[in-house]
Amino acid sequence: VRIDVYFTPGELAASELSSRIAVVIDVLRATSTIVEALANGARAIYPTQTADDAVQLAQVLGREDVLLCGERRGLKIPGFDLGNSPLEFTADRVAGKVLVMATTNGTPALSTCAGAKQVVIASLCNLDAVVAELAGAGEDVAVVCAGRERRFALEDALCAGMLARRLRERLQRAPRTNDAAAVAMTLARRASRRLEGWLQRSAAGRQLREIGLGDDVTYCATVDRHAVVPRLRERQITL
Amino acid sequence: VRIDVYFTPGELAASELSSRIAVVIDVLRATSTIVEALANGARAIYPTQTADDAVQLAQVLGREDVLLCGERRGLKIPGFDLGNSPLEFTADRVAGKVLVMATTNGTPALSTCAGAKQVVIASLCNLDAVVAELAGAGEDVAVVCAGRERRFALEDALCAGMLARRLRERLQRAPRTNDAAAVAMTLARRASRRLEGWLQRSAAGRQLREIGLGDDVTYCATVDRHAVVPRLRERQITL
Repeated sequence: VRIDVYFTPGELAASELSSRIAVVIDVLRATSTIVEALANGARAIYPTQTADDAVQLAQVLGREDVLLCGERRGLKIPGFDLGNSPLEFTADRVAGKVLVMATTNGTPALSTCAGAKQVVIASLCNLDAVVAELAGAGEDVAVVCAGRERRFALEDALCAGMLARRLRERLQRAPRTNDAAAVAMTLARRASRRLEGWLQRSAAGRQLREIGLGDDVTYCATVDRHAVVPRLRERQITL
Repeated sequence: VRIDVYFTPGELAASELSSRIAVVIDVLRATSTIVEALANGARAIYPTQTADDAVQLAQVLGREDVLLCGERRGLKIPGFDLGNSPLEFTADRVAGKVLVMATTNGTPALSTCAGAKQVVIASLCNLDAVVAELAGAGEDVAVVCAGRERRFALEDALCAGMLARRLRERLQRAPRTNDAAAVAMTLARRASRRLEGWLQRSAAGRQLREIGLGDDVTYCATVDRHAVVPRLRERQITL
């Protein structure tokens, strides 16, 4: 089994994923929010590349139970029902609903991974559930960090490293890893005990604090809050 | 002062460098070889994107003292004078010569940086000389890792982290850093004592060993062999 990590979606082509399980990570905040929404009873989430795509898709779906969700520069898109803060996606708001979601970094990463054998959504909030699933599957894994505006993001690399370390512990044989996986695991070894501090100091964490969303960082830094494994299949994410 | 690290050239646009000193790193092996060649008396090095470009430029230069250098898949390009192994660039071969050099990852990274205020070439072999230069300049620094086929490369990240740590120690005030710089410094703290082992285990290190060039890895892992600071100016690299 191989565990490869990619710090930005730009480092791989969709065609390179056809024989692997892709694990998409956007800790601050898209995949944390997706996990939260589905754990709280949302029926399905449609990720879109842009806000316009989200509006159009919501019109096509046309149902009363559709919620428009998404952020630009961290804040809710005007006219949308919800932003991208996991704290907004409570059971009373999302249970039974279909969500259409546009986010800056998370949804582009998901579309890069659409050609993978399977696509799994991971965050710190559902780490162990994803690791258990991957350990059971016994397939090669590509961990794809959403990053931040096509650049390296600390929090995604840290989550990828924690995932790789935990998965390695559960496998019978030592997996082969790429350079990025080795470095992510080194980072995770050093940082996983003071996880929230590292997330607060990351560029995304600092930006969220500046716009008054520091609580989101704390929330997204909580490990194993939910035992769910969201999957992307035919454009929708479900459990 | 800011110290930002970019793990792949794809993470930044040339226009983002106009007010910063760009430091280009390709430890295995382009920038190590450039340092070696200039330290051994080469007059100038012209980096090119492709082997064809190198051949054309050598014809334009047309002088007897021009050497064609470059690799594809790690090995010397057929018909070229030298490959990309620092061990080939001895004083008796390169002193007084002009080198035209095509490499897979190093030269594309250099061309990304061509719009920077200044472009400096760094490797483990000339680390302290570069750090001293940057500390004296007191300008914002963008450390651009060449990476490996547009992907993260461990050895470049490690060198970037060592550079950032040493530079931080020499500055009066703590520099601001981006996420990648923070992670590179964490890696450097952990790995810099067993540098050669880390380089041998990197993807590039393993590939070089497989084609019989393991000695190159040892050579490129030697810190502060040469006190030179190569610079790219108007398409050529000189001291």
